[in-house]
Amino acid sequence: MSLIAILTDFGERDFYVAAMKAVIKNICPSAEIIDITHQVRKWSILDAAYILSCCYDDFPKGTVFLVVVDPGVGTKRLPIAIKSRNYYWVAPDNGVAFTAAQRDGILETRIIENEKLFWRKKSFTFHGRDIFAPTAAHLACGFDFEQIGNVLKNPVLVKEHGAKILENGLVGYVVHIDDFGNVALSITDKQLSEVGIRYGDTVVVEIREKKFNIPFVQSFGKVRKESPLLLVNSCGKLEIAINQGNAAEVFSLSLGDKVKILKKG
Amino acid sequence: MSLIAILTDFGERDFYVAAMKAVIKNICPSAEIIDITHQVRKWSILDAAYILSCCYDDFPKGTVFLVVVDPGVGTKRLPIAIKSRNYYWVAPDNGVAFTAAQRDGILETRIIENEKLFWRKKSFTFHGRDIFAPTAAHLACGFDFEQIGNVLKNPVLVKEHGAKILENGLVGYVVHIDDFGNVALSITDKQLSEVGIRYGDTVVVEIREKKFNIPFVQSFGKVRKESPLLLVNSCGKLEIAINQGNAAEVFSLSLGDKVKILKKG
Amino acid sequence: MSLIAILTDFGERDFYVAAMKAVIKNICPSAEIIDITHQVRKWSILDAAYILSCCYDDFPKGTVFLVVVDPGVGTKRLPIAIKSRNYYWVAPDNGVAFTAAQRDGILETRIIENEKLFWRKKSFTFHGRDIFAPTAAHLACGFDFEQIGNVLKNPVLVKEHGAKILENGLVGYVVHIDDFGNVALSITDKQLSEVGIRYGDTVVVEIREKKFNIPFVQSFGKVRKESPLLLVNSCGKLEIAINQGNAAEVFSLSLGDKVKILKKG
Repeated sequence: MSLIAILTDFGERDFYVAAMKAVIKNICPSAEIIDITHQVRKWSILDAAYILSCCYDDFPKGTVFLVVVDPGVGTKRLPIAIKSRNYYWVAPDNGVAFTAAQRDGILETRIIENEKLFWRKKSFTFHGRDIFAPTAAHLACGFDFEQIGNVLKNPVLVKEHGAKILENGLVGYVVHIDDFGNVALSITDKQLSEVGIRYGDTVVVEIREKKFNIPFVQSFGKVRKESPLLLVNSCGKLEIAINQGNAAEVFSLSLGDKVKILKKG
Repeated sequence: MSLIAILTDFGERDFYVAAMKAVIKNICPSAEIIDITHQVRKWSILDAAYILSCCYDDFPKGTVFLVVVDPGVGTKRLPIAIKSRNYYWVAPDNGVAFTAAQRDGILETRIIENEKLFWRKKSFTFHGRDIFAPTAAHLACGFDFEQIGNVLKNPVLVKEHGAKILENGLVGYVVHIDDFGNVALSITDKQLSEVGIRYGDTVVVEIREKKFNIPFVQSFGKVRKESPLLLVNSCGKLEIAINQGNAAEVFSLSLGDKVKILKKG
Repeated sequence: MSLIAILTDFGERDFYVAAMKAVIKNICPSAEIIDITHQVRKWSILDAAYILSCCYDDFPKGTVFLVVVDPGVGTKRLPIAIKSRNYYWVAPDNGVAFTAAQRDGILETRIIENEKLFWRKKSFTFHGRDIFAPTAAHLACGFDFEQIGNVLKNPVLVKEHGAKILENGLVGYVVHIDDFGNVALSITDKQLSEVGIRYGDTVVVEIREKKFNIPFVQSFGKVRKESPLLLVNSCGKLEIAINQGNAAEVFSLSLGDKVKILKKG
């Protein structure tokens, strides 16, 4: 089995995702395709990197990740392929696949240059179809990684939001808002225990200088319906949520917003 | 072939559905996956139960239904697996899979307790990935149903909306609004004929005490464009529709709303 | 391998797409299914025809296209199957698959009449499940095309938007708006060169009598972020875009709107 997992910001109303899958099936009929999502926030490399880093290690060894969030298409940004310890990654050289690949352990990065990899259609705006999908398909069917093109020494990194430890808590940033409106922050479970915040604590959440007392609990059902809670989400990040409600709307939070998490009293 | 059909309220912008599929492919590479939908109305067990009951019997014998609409995740609600005459069902014990499974003929319900079934990641908020998907994958690859856990005698039921027969018609409730805005009611074609409503009749539809005369016909094209109609939908339920229009918007109808269907004159 | 590619306006919140796939898997378990999109503008045969014509030729030879945009369901419109040089097409006889099939070279069109092709469920409103999906599945598993039904001599055509050449430019119409808000026009790259518009030119775009000077370039990144541009899209059509922005919103353009493209000065 060869598995290709696709992540884009293309949405699902157009022919874009289908064209990529069609190209894959032309080149490597035995490849199986799984959609990660095509609803990454448009042009957001950070949003895509977060989603990818949360689920890549659930995939079988050998999976090829085909990641196309590509605001620089048609400019000089390079198309690249990365070989890491357990996976392949095909993406524009803008950092979108780098974080997850690095966590898996990057072995080598190459520029996609070999014209044998290119699709028969050539456009200036859809390298997903013309370059990335066919490269992923060839890799899924055993194409020699070293034949892709020259080694790239310094791929582009993205500066991810981190967390800062304060005297009485932490500062983090909104890194993802899910379809329920749950708000993931750039604060890990480990950082929480470092500052001594534990399940059962009531924590002060400061958003644009307004303060809210919110309990830190294990899951939604530990508070009443429509009440706020803090939890560690399934990607290991601190999350602001409302039990059966939409926290992003209630607290007016957007990607990149700053949030302080303070110990009470 | 082993087929797993997935139904959730997760939406499609996050890594949630992909993580479940990745886990499945890790455990049972030969499983084929079909998405039923991931856009069930959030936390709505009734909406999910309706969708499932409309299509489960189109699937091949042996299909495993993986149903995760789970407002009680992280509480004491149990994870269960059901064996029915033709299918398997993996879901939280909140009634979401019960109606459809019961229609197929339930043979046995077991609590998912065997730790061999659990995924290597463990969270308090994503049993879809950690418990339900791996259980479905193991079942698709032949895992012995009796090894799942203890038998559950009294699984949770949901009280579905029914219909009430009146002297001159029926009272029903909105059970689903589809992407076109067609409004399905908890009234079956059989109940319609019981009260003597037949194709070609003009029927009085009463919504919040306002009355509308609407023809009961076979299909959309039997009335003029943008005109209202009543029909029996492809799930055997009475449906309020507008030919090439959005009935839910025009009649301001939402899930659970009461509607009277009365014989004219 | 037998591949079935599905294109509908059903949306993804209901059981409709799942039921079609379930029927396919029942009839032809070896068929692989690819979704083109289910978010065609509701009832828009033109929108579906555009999407299909942009990607059909990326699919492997032998693919069966299952196209259900069907405002006339339940009326006298016929269900048809088309055999073209490289593909099969199953659709209502309303022109939705005709343009793409014709471009591939139509060999024969037949009415779907053979009752062996019908699903065990029969409704007046969901021929996608009851007639089209099972026909596509049978074709994918080798059903004899000549056994489908009688030959149809004159299938329904759709009148597609064309372009008109003016003294100093072109008039075209909006044929598709993608999920980014890019606006595709019924003007081809060939027509542009016929009137002498070349990469690097600044062009006058006239929308509802307002004029905008917009550069015609190869790709988004050739202009500054949030600036407008004209490009030839990956389907060979002239497109109005905004670099990392939504051109349909900025210029208030909808499907069918008229746009003039004029040479400057």
